[in-house]
Amino acid sequence: MTPEIQVIGIPGMPEIKVGDDLAGLIVEAAERHSIPIEEGDILVVTQKIVSKAEGQVIQMEDIEPSTIALQLSEGTHRDPRHTEVILRESKRIVRMDRGNIISETHHGFNCANAGVDASNVPGEGTLALLPVDPDASAEGIRNGIKERLGKDVAVIISDTFGRPWREGAVNVAIGVAGMNPLLDYRGREDASGKLLRSTVIAVADELAATAELVTGKVRGVPVALIRGYAYGPADASEPQGDLPKGARALIRPPERDMFR
Amino acid sequence: MTPEIQVIGIPGMPEIKVGDDLAGLIVEAAERHSIPIEEGDILVVTQKIVSKAEGQVIQMEDIEPSTIALQLSEGTHRDPRHTEVILRESKRIVRMDRGNIISETHHGFNCANAGVDASNVPGEGTLALLPVDPDASAEGIRNGIKERLGKDVAVIISDTFGRPWREGAVNVAIGVAGMNPLLDYRGREDASGKLLRSTVIAVADELAATAELVTGKVRGVPVALIRGYAYGPADASEPQGDLPKGARALIRPPERDMFR
Repeated sequence: MTPEIQVIGIPGMPEIKVGDDLAGLIVEAAERHSIPIEEGDILVVTQKIVSKAEGQVIQMEDIEPSTIALQLSEGTHRDPRHTEVILRESKRIVRMDRGNIISETHHGFNCANAGVDASNVPGEGTLALLPVDPDASAEGIRNGIKERLGKDVAVIISDTFGRPWREGAVNVAIGVAGMNPLLDYRGREDASGKLLRSTVIAVADELAATAELVTGKVRGVPVALIRGYAYGPADASEPQGDLPKGARALIRPPERDMFR
Repeated sequence: MTPEIQVIGIPGMPEIKVGDDLAGLIVEAAERHSIPIEEGDILVVTQKIVSKAEGQVIQMEDIEPSTIALQLSEGTHRDPRHTEVILRESKRIVRMDRGNIISETHHGFNCANAGVDASNVPGEGTLALLPVDPDASAEGIRNGIKERLGKDVAVIISDTFGRPWREGAVNVAIGVAGMNPLLDYRGREDASGKLLRSTVIAVADELAATAELVTGKVRGVPVALIRGYAYGPADASEPQGDLPKGARALIRPPERDMFR
């Protein structure tokens, strides 16, 4: 049997406004482009449209920059009010050098600029923040699809993160619903019959990266549908009932993190 | 227009031995499973079969562990000779804690255990090392496909790397031929007309992650074909003629690396 996966960009989404029903708009755009959404499909939704729908958008004119924001912005391209928003969205600074800010967000994500940015947001002086609870955002879209079509799908909210040591950013999962974001091979045997000791794959991050290949940054295609990948059930991520669910399971706890 | 990508696992590769002609075996396996390889396709080849074909495999019985390898292995599951091989394949230790070794390889990759591991290698006491020059490995496979089929394809050699701060590993590109591994949006406008200042996407890493969804660890499918992704030409990665080519372009130079 030949394993095969399809990755389909869903074009034709309108410019998203606060309060818009994303699940409904995705279903409509998919129907208009004759892309059927089927049971077991994965919808990858880029963070920016989720933030816009949830009103996680801020006007720089409403921001008073602090002294540290003013200092950090000196000699950089960034408006001090933008820097101020980044600091407010951070709970811990990981690195701060030559205008670059790598910080931990209130969710626990380690990324540049606390996920705050101005790209693909209309209007000068407007910044998008990350959703307050991206797992809940994913669950909301998943439930909306279920209500409209009666189909169970998995939903991933994706954002573009840089990585230490490697050039270029990749899309990762910041919100997950309806699937186990991790695939745990521990205790299984490899193709040569050896026990795999330590391999856990972040499949939700790989799916987010996959979707980026069709959504991109300049095409106005903020949603991708992935078909043919057999993901694990969501509750498998909490075998003892006490492990985090959703994309929270992708955040390495401090006691296991060698890079804190 | 609806952007669409297909990801197809190529099954039926034999167990790879030193000196095997990977391009020939891939072409044969694809033909046997009626998977045509077309101009512009991307072949993602997992590192383990490349290492085996190139003889980058070592017998632990030939290794004498050093004192530091003996000390580092105490209280861990790892054989001291395995630890010794990891240290020999490293040019710099990034972190070393509780038996975990994160190091920089001679190629410049920062990863766990210098890429040395025993999974999917037949025989007790056998370890696979990374290819000596994975970009050259990719180029060799690309040339072999061109000779046999007359088609230009891109080739990515992938390996599974962990990441700071995030649970689970993902596949990344350690060798690239026939395409630009990075997609540089700087200077282009986003869908709302704003200039993108800093977005460079590591598309070769995203393609490697995509392929992992069909190759996996336990299925004996070490090669994936990706169709429908319009990659940039290889020479676009060196506009001034002095930038690194292939997967070397994905290694952040020390002077730009905030995590060294």
